[in-house]
Amino acid sequence: MKMEEKKFEETKKDSTSFINRVDFAKGSGLVPVVVQDQKTKDVLMVAYANKEAVALSFETGVAHYWSRSRASLWKKGETSGHVQKIREIKMDCDADTILYLVDQVGVACHRGTWSCFDESPT
Amino acid sequence: MKMEEKKFEETKKDSTSFINRVDFAKGSGLVPVVVQDQKTKDVLMVAYANKEAVALSFETGVAHYWSRSRASLWKKGETSGHVQKIREIKMDCDADTILYLVDQVGVACHRGTWSCFDESPT
Repeated sequence: MKMEEKKFEETKKDSTSFINRVDFAKGSGLVPVVVQDQKTKDVLMVAYANKEAVALSFETGVAHYWSRSRASLWKKGETSGHVQKIREIKMDCDADTILYLVDQVGVACHRGTWSCFDESPT
Repeated sequence: MKMEEKKFEETKKDSTSFINRVDFAKGSGLVPVVVQDQKTKDVLMVAYANKEAVALSFETGVAHYWSRSRASLWKKGETSGHVQKIREIKMDCDADTILYLVDQVGVACHRGTWSCFDESPT
């Protein structure tokens, strides 16, 4: 088992207590999730998650979100295959923001760019 | 002038058009701002900005936010001296999230840790 997988396995053990510490109430049930590629450290995107999406990310090891536009759970890459393998899940000091450290398969942005913060292809 | 300063000077020229493209309406006047240290690529924190805070960040070259708890403009480091020198400001593909690439002076987190996503000192 690779070191980063081992690290995730450790966090996973405490996932219930982790999730219970997250302040979902502040954002009416949702927290923003910053998604960072663990190898390049690029910020890939920001999405939103509810409790269930975070629980599913721990459980399945691939990133899940809450789509605000579709008002539904969203497994990233379900259609495109561009899944994000979770390597670590962290919360910030006031527990209202989450960071997913991931191995991005393919690209993160629906426009075909690596990151949602990259300039759009012209 | 260093390369990164030059880059910021270029973005700054188009700051009005940049700000006008940001979708502040979706979040009732606020957008989340991911703050990344440009040297280490660490994600330091997530805060919120209104139009004025983004404009001030461009204008002064140091990070400004909107404090939701104090309901006021917030110049990061005003009290602590831990300012964030702006090197680049980007928006994401749907223009509802901003990324500040900064040179962090001191530490980012009020707990004294480098990043708000670092474990708290015990």
